[in-house]
Amino acid sequence: MDYPNDQAPGAPVRSGIPEHGRIPKYYAVKAHIALLIEELGEGGLLPTERDLAEQYGVARETVRQALRELLLEGKLRRQGRGTVVAGPKLEQPLSLASYTEGVRRQGRTPGRTLISLDRFPCSETLAAEAGLTRGEPVWHMERVLLADDERVGLESTYVAVARVPHLDRDFTPDSSFYAYLHDRLGIAFGDADERIETVLATPREALLIGTPPALPMILIHRVSRDTERRPLERVRTLYRGDRFSFTAHLGR
Amino acid sequence: MDYPNDQAPGAPVRSGIPEHGRIPKYYAVKAHIALLIEELGEGGLLPTERDLAEQYGVARETVRQALRELLLEGKLRRQGRGTVVAGPKLEQPLSLASYTEGVRRQGRTPGRTLISLDRFPCSETLAAEAGLTRGEPVWHMERVLLADDERVGLESTYVAVARVPHLDRDFTPDSSFYAYLHDRLGIAFGDADERIETVLATPREALLIGTPPALPMILIHRVSRDTERRPLERVRTLYRGDRFSFTAHLGR
Repeated sequence: MDYPNDQAPGAPVRSGIPEHGRIPKYYAVKAHIALLIEELGEGGLLPTERDLAEQYGVARETVRQALRELLLEGKLRRQGRGTVVAGPKLEQPLSLASYTEGVRRQGRTPGRTLISLDRFPCSETLAAEAGLTRGEPVWHMERVLLADDERVGLESTYVAVARVPHLDRDFTPDSSFYAYLHDRLGIAFGDADERIETVLATPREALLIGTPPALPMILIHRVSRDTERRPLERVRTLYRGDRFSFTAHLGR
Repeated sequence: MDYPNDQAPGAPVRSGIPEHGRIPKYYAVKAHIALLIEELGEGGLLPTERDLAEQYGVARETVRQALRELLLEGKLRRQGRGTVVAGPKLEQPLSLASYTEGVRRQGRTPGRTLISLDRFPCSETLAAEAGLTRGEPVWHMERVLLADDERVGLESTYVAVARVPHLDRDFTPDSSFYAYLHDRLGIAFGDADERIETVLATPREALLIGTPPALPMILIHRVSRDTERRPLERVRTLYRGDRFSFTAHLGR
C-alpha cells in the first residue's frame, strides 16, 4: 500500500491527491524547500531565490510564492538580506496565567511597549460583554507584546477605572498587568472565558507589530472575573500566527 | 478626547493611526463595506463590484482586494454569482466533547464524508507522539467535516488497530467516531492535550474542503487518552478559519 508510513502525524497528508487535483508548481517547490529546511535546521541560511530557481528549474516568481507561504507559516524568517530557518512556534498555554509567565516558561524574555492609555465612558457593547455599567469610566490600554525584543503581538485591555483608579500613575506599562493587580491591589483572577479565531491584521496592527499585512494572526478575546466573580477585564490580544501556537489540557 | 467610545471592544482599534502610517485605499473601502455589512445583516446581498467601485470612486481592483479580505475573514460569502453577508462564525468549545456535539449545540447538523481509511505500521514519530509502539498496526481515517452540508474542515484520526480492530467493518464513517468508541466498545475519553495554530491549507486540503488555497485555517492537534490514561488517538483537524472560532472556559 502506498501510505507513507514515515508521514509525521501532524503534517498534512500529501499522498492520495484526487485524480481531478493537480499539484501547483509552486507547491512542489515548497515541498522541496520544506525538506531543505529540515536538513538545514534552525538558523540555517537558505540559498538565494535565484539559486533555488536554477536548482529546481522554475521561474523566480514560483520560488517567491513558495517562500512567501513558508514565511507566512513561520517556517522561515528574514534575517538581514537573507532568509533563514525559523525556530519552532512559541507554545503559549491557554490559562489564567499571564503572557509574562507563558513566555518565561519557554525561556524567553517577555516585554511590552505602551502604545496608548486612554480613559473613556464605557460603551454599551463593552458594558454588555464585560459586565460593566454603561457610561462608567473605563481604561483602554494598548501594548505591543515582545518576546526577546521581537514584536510578536498587540494587546488591548479594557478595565473599569473604579477597579484600578491609578493605572495611569502607579503602573509601569512595560511590566505585567496581572502582577500589578495582584501585588499592588490584591486582586486575583478567578476565571475567564476565551474565544480564539484567526483574522488578518489591519494595516495599523501590521505596522505596530511589524508584520506583512496579509499575515494570518491568532486573535484571542478574553473576559475575566476575579475570585469573587466580579468582572475584571475585557482583553483583545492579537498574536503573530507565524510565531505562536496555543496549548490546552482538556479533562472531564 | 478622540477615543471612539462606540468602538466595539472586540474590534481592532482603528483610531490613532501613527503619523508615519497611512491607510491604504483598499482598507478604507473595506471599512466602508464593513459598515454596509452591518446594515444589510446576515444573508443580505452586496452590490456588485462595479457598483461599489462607482459608489466609492475607486478602481474595481481596489474593491476586489477589500472583498477578498472580507471573504477570507468570513464576513462575506459567495452565493451563486453574488456575494452575501455571512453568518457569525461557529463557536466550537475546546473540550473532550466531539465535533458532533459541538455543532449540534449550535443548532447545526453535523456530517462527515470519508476520504480514506488505511492501515499501516506505526511510524516512529507517531509512536512517540501518541504513546504507541513503533511498527504496530495503526488506522488512519481521513474525513471531511460538514455543518449543514457545507464542507468546513478535514480530520485525520490515527488510532491503534488493537483498540478498534473492526473499524473498517462495523463503523459507519459518516457517524461520530466518539459515539462508536463509547457505545460499541465501551471506551470513554479521560483527557487530551491540544495544540492550536493557524496554517495555510495545502492545495489538496483546499480541494477537499472546497476553499481558496490562501484561506487561513485553524489547525488543532489532539492526543487523547482513555479514562485509564491509556493512549487513544492522535488527531489532526483543520477547520476553515472563516467559519470557526473556538471557546474555552479557564478556571483556577
